[in-house]
Amino acid sequence: MDSLYAKLADELTVSAAKGVLRSGDKLPSIREASQTRGVSVTTVKRAYQLLESRGMVEARPNAGYYVKARAAARLSLHPPEVALPSSLDGDVGRLVLDTLRAISVANALPFASPYPDPSLLPWRRVRQHVTDIARKYPQWSATDDLPPGDPELIRQIALAHMRGGLDVDPSQIVVTGGATEAINLCLQAVANPGDTIAVESPLFYLMRQAIDRMRMRAVEVPTDPRTGIDLAALADLAKRQRLDACLTMPNFQNPMGFSMPDDAKQALVRLAEAHDMPLIENGVYNQLHHGAKPPATLKSFDRKGLVLHCSSFSKCLTSATRVGWAIPGRYRDKVESLKILSGLSTSAITQMAIARYLARDNWEHHLRGVRQQLAQRMAIMRASVLRLFPAGTRVSEPTGGFILWVELPPQVDSLALYKAALESAITVAPGRFFSQNLSRNCIRLNCSYPWTNRLEAGIRQLGCIATRLLSEA
Amino acid sequence: MDSLYAKLADELTVSAAKGVLRSGDKLPSIREASQTRGVSVTTVKRAYQLLESRGMVEARPNAGYYVKARAAARLSLHPPEVALPSSLDGDVGRLVLDTLRAISVANALPFASPYPDPSLLPWRRVRQHVTDIARKYPQWSATDDLPPGDPELIRQIALAHMRGGLDVDPSQIVVTGGATEAINLCLQAVANPGDTIAVESPLFYLMRQAIDRMRMRAVEVPTDPRTGIDLAALADLAKRQRLDACLTMPNFQNPMGFSMPDDAKQALVRLAEAHDMPLIENGVYNQLHHGAKPPATLKSFDRKGLVLHCSSFSKCLTSATRVGWAIPGRYRDKVESLKILSGLSTSAITQMAIARYLARDNWEHHLRGVRQQLAQRMAIMRASVLRLFPAGTRVSEPTGGFILWVELPPQVDSLALYKAALESAITVAPGRFFSQNLSRNCIRLNCSYPWTNRLEAGIRQLGCIATRLLSEA
Repeated sequence: MDSLYAKLADELTVSAAKGVLRSGDKLPSIREASQTRGVSVTTVKRAYQLLESRGMVEARPNAGYYVKARAAARLSLHPPEVALPSSLDGDVGRLVLDTLRAISVANALPFASPYPDPSLLPWRRVRQHVTDIARKYPQWSATDDLPPGDPELIRQIALAHMRGGLDVDPSQIVVTGGATEAINLCLQAVANPGDTIAVESPLFYLMRQAIDRMRMRAVEVPTDPRTGIDLAALADLAKRQRLDACLTMPNFQNPMGFSMPDDAKQALVRLAEAHDMPLIENGVYNQLHHGAKPPATLKSFDRKGLVLHCSSFSKCLTSATRVGWAIPGRYRDKVESLKILSGLSTSAITQMAIARYLARDNWEHHLRGVRQQLAQRMAIMRASVLRLFPAGTRVSEPTGGFILWVELPPQVDSLALYKAALESAITVAPGRFFSQNLSRNCIRLNCSYPWTNRLEAGIRQLGCIATRLLSEA
Repeated sequence: MDSLYAKLADELTVSAAKGVLRSGDKLPSIREASQTRGVSVTTVKRAYQLLESRGMVEARPNAGYYVKARAAARLSLHPPEVALPSSLDGDVGRLVLDTLRAISVANALPFASPYPDPSLLPWRRVRQHVTDIARKYPQWSATDDLPPGDPELIRQIALAHMRGGLDVDPSQIVVTGGATEAINLCLQAVANPGDTIAVESPLFYLMRQAIDRMRMRAVEVPTDPRTGIDLAALADLAKRQRLDACLTMPNFQNPMGFSMPDDAKQALVRLAEAHDMPLIENGVYNQLHHGAKPPATLKSFDRKGLVLHCSSFSKCLTSATRVGWAIPGRYRDKVESLKILSGLSTSAITQMAIARYLARDNWEHHLRGVRQQLAQRMAIMRASVLRLFPAGTRVSEPTGGFILWVELPPQVDSLALYKAALESAITVAPGRFFSQNLSRNCIRLNCSYPWTNRLEAGIRQLGCIATRLLSEA
């Protein structure tokens, strides 16, 4: 009996040490604990008394036992992790997580971030709409979140596309949890494990991962850093082997920044038609064109429903709420079915809030300001990189979005650069995030933040590290 | 030139007819439209004038062209779909979507719903916390949503498990977008396409789908409707072939309602250890035990980190916000990596709001009321089914959760019952949702709603349909 109550007291002490129990937390009632731990009421009582005698808990009259303030503080062995990651072992997912954590927890410079500077986005307004709708919305039911999504949001998405030059029947749109979910669902709708997906190379890691996790086979097609996927190479490939789909980002591609010329887009769609090959189009940066004219989509050349257009509000409106959409052409019903079986997850209230923002807040006006800011910030960052990085460095010239692709002299190993930069609390996305084979000497830089001394010092520091690596090579 | 502007006018008219343009919507400015459509400013002007002459739009001085009220109303060809589904073709995803849509849009009786009566859940309180936090939260950044999740929520989850008798180190917990995402991530962490997953039969369709979509192979293990998976059969199977994982719901199983005896749970974990076979445990109903004592988890018998426990707040706190968690044992880091590569999607604000509810609102007290209600409602529903359904009908006796599994006489085809019931605006989940082969004469009924005349009439009507089908068989 003695050992039983001491054992229980020790278990609770360990729980406190691990940070589960904190000051002011109520211990389970004696009866509860007796039931859940399978020991007698007496044993629990004695264990609690033991803890009381150790100064860890206090009995409050008619209220039970509570963890004492000092005890919890003393026992808390669980400070938040703030150590910067140093190991490069493990998969890309781990590297990406470590990188984002360095930005989030250790406040490292966010050149590796895939998100735009939040101060550019009207997320406060969207949040206000969420709050308003949440307050008014009379009764909630889980079935409100059903695919294809909130009808007014769907209409607003169609309207935004119409303003961009693409006429979409609203019934063709399926709302998703961001573009990543849209692309995952579209891949599943058109292909099976073992199937072959033609992709640009290098390619954004979440896209690569979407293919890998479905155990599909990605075939890298030669890609020109200024004009995109090599159509002759793709045609040749399609002649020699079955391509079950092609996943592509024709505008402001992540990471290289190219935009395909419109006639190449049209030719790509025609090629897809000739081979009955679905084209999954990632359009997440389309609203962030720097010039006056929105870019043309592959979807606008689609005559046979073969293009599955995917996009999102995460880069252009609010990344706090992952809401995206797919326009999957002839695969619409399949995508909708897959969406429901993936577990409903796109909150009706969030959808309504975004719809309301789009209807009332003049998004176009806001976007015009964002485009101007991004164009300016990119120009400054680009000039600084060319000035402060070793001679021979080349930098992409995107006409939209907020990322730069930097090609260092071939001797520079971007993984070594990544590692050294992280030690200085600077994050960059090394080439390895985007390709297993190519891009060894490349990094991707986020240029959406306002130019400050700290940012300039960061770029200068990256230039120094690169120069050192070059001299050591 | 003439045909160009007429064509543009027609395109815009079609957009209005499809419901994209509504009264009061602004048309793109003439300059915008000229750029995006690739036509001259003059063509756009003439198109807009043509639409004005047709009474569809009006010019407002210095503000552009707007869709006129009556025009949009007249042209709206896009009423919400309210037709009840009648076809049984297509995959289960489509059937499930049709069923949920019947509940949501057509207000059909929700016996097929997988969610508890929302009025049982304190979602208003959680929403209030969301609103409060959203208002105060100073600056938002996408990297706030990083795995493993909000530290205070993780601590509260550990605390809830502790009260239920399971000591969990908070560092072992990964927050997910509901239990479905948790189970999907865990499956991916432990197995590959082509691998074999042992499952109970019948099995909740979202679990089956998680296996199917990863192109893993589900092997149905004989399952006793009162005590769960047949351990001798499982042991025999494991001797004869490699089982890469076992996916199981040991407490209040969906759909059959059984709970495994505790010694069987322990034996299952030991069997898994002997074969080094990961056990994915679905614990989503664990908080909804009808008796005083929380059920034991497989995780509580886990000595080697082989149990991946998955759960969620969707059934016991708020289904409006899909927040769940995994305790993946030795696969924790892998699950965390997969979570980030699946696209971040579990909002930091929602996590904080749930954490705050758990810390301040006496969830345990609320749950005690819910448990009592569910036990009563289930008893009434159970008695009514036995009274109103054909002789020979058998009904499960779960000691937790809110679903009943009804086995009709073998001649009754539950798909025919499903179809006939839907015509009377009553939804039931037919056996086919849960098994390809078994359960032909079974249906699953949600019994979480308060007993009303309408509900009783619905059960009576189901009984009549079943009796008719029986007489026709």
